[in-house]
Amino acid sequence: MEPEPCSRPAEPGHCVSGPPSSGSAFPASLLSAAGAEPGSLPGTVAAVLPAGGCGERMGVSIPKQFCGLLERPLISYTLQALESVCWIKDIVVTVTGEKMAAMRSIIQRYGHKRISLAEAGATRHRSIFNGLKALAEDQPDCKLTKPEVVIIHDAVRPFVEEDILLRVVIAAKEHGCSDYDLEFGTECLQLALKYCHRKARLIEGPPNLWKVTYKQDLYAAESMIKEKISQEICVVMNTKDQEATGHLLEEVLRDKLNCVKVTSVVLDHVGGDIQNFITDQCYSFICVNVVPSDFQETQKLLSIIEESSRPLLYPIVVVLVHCLDFTLVPLTQKLESLMWIRALAREVKERNILLSGLLLNYSQDEQKLQESLGQGAAIIAALVKERNSALAGQLLVA
Amino acid sequence: MEPEPCSRPAEPGHCVSGPPSSGSAFPASLLSAAGAEPGSLPGTVAAVLPAGGCGERMGVSIPKQFCGLLERPLISYTLQALESVCWIKDIVVTVTGEKMAAMRSIIQRYGHKRISLAEAGATRHRSIFNGLKALAEDQPDCKLTKPEVVIIHDAVRPFVEEDILLRVVIAAKEHGCSDYDLEFGTECLQLALKYCHRKARLIEGPPNLWKVTYKQDLYAAESMIKEKISQEICVVMNTKDQEATGHLLEEVLRDKLNCVKVTSVVLDHVGGDIQNFITDQCYSFICVNVVPSDFQETQKLLSIIEESSRPLLYPIVVVLVHCLDFTLVPLTQKLESLMWIRALAREVKERNILLSGLLLNYSQDEQKLQESLGQGAAIIAALVKERNSALAGQLLVA
Repeated sequence: MEPEPCSRPAEPGHCVSGPPSSGSAFPASLLSAAGAEPGSLPGTVAAVLPAGGCGERMGVSIPKQFCGLLERPLISYTLQALESVCWIKDIVVTVTGEKMAAMRSIIQRYGHKRISLAEAGATRHRSIFNGLKALAEDQPDCKLTKPEVVIIHDAVRPFVEEDILLRVVIAAKEHGCSDYDLEFGTECLQLALKYCHRKARLIEGPPNLWKVTYKQDLYAAESMIKEKISQEICVVMNTKDQEATGHLLEEVLRDKLNCVKVTSVVLDHVGGDIQNFITDQCYSFICVNVVPSDFQETQKLLSIIEESSRPLLYPIVVVLVHCLDFTLVPLTQKLESLMWIRALAREVKERNILLSGLLLNYSQDEQKLQESLGQGAAIIAALVKERNSALAGQLLVA
Repeated sequence: MEPEPCSRPAEPGHCVSGPPSSGSAFPASLLSAAGAEPGSLPGTVAAVLPAGGCGERMGVSIPKQFCGLLERPLISYTLQALESVCWIKDIVVTVTGEKMAAMRSIIQRYGHKRISLAEAGATRHRSIFNGLKALAEDQPDCKLTKPEVVIIHDAVRPFVEEDILLRVVIAAKEHGCSDYDLEFGTECLQLALKYCHRKARLIEGPPNLWKVTYKQDLYAAESMIKEKISQEICVVMNTKDQEATGHLLEEVLRDKLNCVKVTSVVLDHVGGDIQNFITDQCYSFICVNVVPSDFQETQKLLSIIEESSRPLLYPIVVVLVHCLDFTLVPLTQKLESLMWIRALAREVKERNILLSGLLLNYSQDEQKLQESLGQGAAIIAALVKERNSALAGQLLVA
């Protein structure tokens, strides 16, 4: 255990838990779903994440918990999932000495809160022991609260959700077993019985709680994250004049991407308060412009995105849609747009915003217009789904 | 069992097995790796694929074996893997009555060979039984050879390889158990003991033999396939004049994509025999052109690709690279290229070829040239890796 990082930051961080039940830190809806008995709720809950593994089964050189998913380390996603649960007071991560600095830099870069570090042991069980020691009040220099229940969670199970954690915590409180690792078929149940004389209970987790073990699991995890952040697309119209075009595109997007929630917002209506109209789960923005050279409004949207914590955690897709009748507008005008977008894209790419341009053929011919809108929707879907930074700054034509 | 489809096609299909050992259909190198004893080799081998499941755990409406990976059904990949093993004489797929027509259409569309169909039963074991019955010589109208060993293979394990199949077949011959399903922890071992008085043996499979069960497995499988077909990129130079440019790009690609094999070929050198210079595992082609309007050679390459069986099984990526000094060549010339590529891309997309254009800034300034080459390599990597058909026909700028 390193004494230095063992302190709890003041801010609680990215909490997204539902409303708490009266007199308890736990959300009422989840408590009732978990079938919690009165008196079965523990006081303080903490989590220990053993993250000292070397990932030998993965077939890659980096330990799997540090492998990048959309360029962010896997463990950062797991921390994000645990942090979002308000009633977990402290999260102790155990890492090997040589990974201590890297882990600190991950915590700082992605703004993780309520995290302490402890040194991993030679085995998983020794690492868990070190994590538990860090939470014991009798340690010198330790400012952590001694918890009543500790969740032991694999660093390589990034998709853990509040409901399963709550069910585990309630079961732990009822059965008295404070060390529980969510893993099926684990030897921990036997160890608990043998050494603590506690009868541990196995709680079935959802399929997405699976452990990232092999290379194909990394692929699956990245695709799951991409899917999760591509559930919503916001169509931003810059002025009232563009509402007709915007709504046309919105309609086609809704029709073609039937699993995605498509919302829209008109910048003029909301002024600077666009934040209030965009949900926290929106990471994809389609800006509809009629005039290619007017980009003040686009700059405003980009500033709002940059100021939020969104691009810190995920690449944000922004597509600038320009509508032109290909038979009326000279082709060179399109190229002007290309050059402007290229420069701006390069600038915002550094801040994890993937900006592209899309030219729609706003033809008077209804069939041609529909064809272009359909192709445009397919291109938008590809950009949103793949989030490939190499394709930022391109001007695409539908 | 349906008598009608129960016949073996004349052609053996896509066999890629290594050279056979003397006097045996089995490749010598694999036999020695599998530690085969003399006399341990069976005569005729067949496979039964139970594919009657409804995919209830997947959370999708289509049974998982019919879900599309790169727009081709999962079961077609499994059939392809089994077909590539020459010593498997017959492959019997058991499907439900309502999926019989769909399965026949898959076999026809993707040119599968040595496949027979049988009707699935109410349980997995009944389906296997029906498959085995189809292989019994005493069935009327059945032209299949009665095999000595039958491999039972899940339709949803697409990445099976010849070596594990051979090890299973050798073990089956030694232990006498003819029904073996590769699945860990299966009840089949107990069933074999109870009903056949055969002591079955468990053979450990590689991690990539995992069963596609949940939605995340579909994502993982698609990524594995994408990775597999993106292992090689061929840079095609159309004339001797373009060799310098081509080799420059080849070098940057080799440097940036260090896990990918980058080969090159000059069309002038090989004439019509380009087939001989491209390996069967190459599904990505980069054509280097200096003059944007000369596309006869590109047409030649496209014809060669179309005539091979490649686009039947996987989407082929073709990137037409045009080198222009952005400060010297008028921008409108770029647009001409755009229009020409768009039309051609639309035409070849129907035949599963994803064509894009890439403009490289062939600047006199060494730094600008290297920057453009680097960005070009990143764009090529994205197109090769993602194979997203929505982005075909675009002219990208590096």
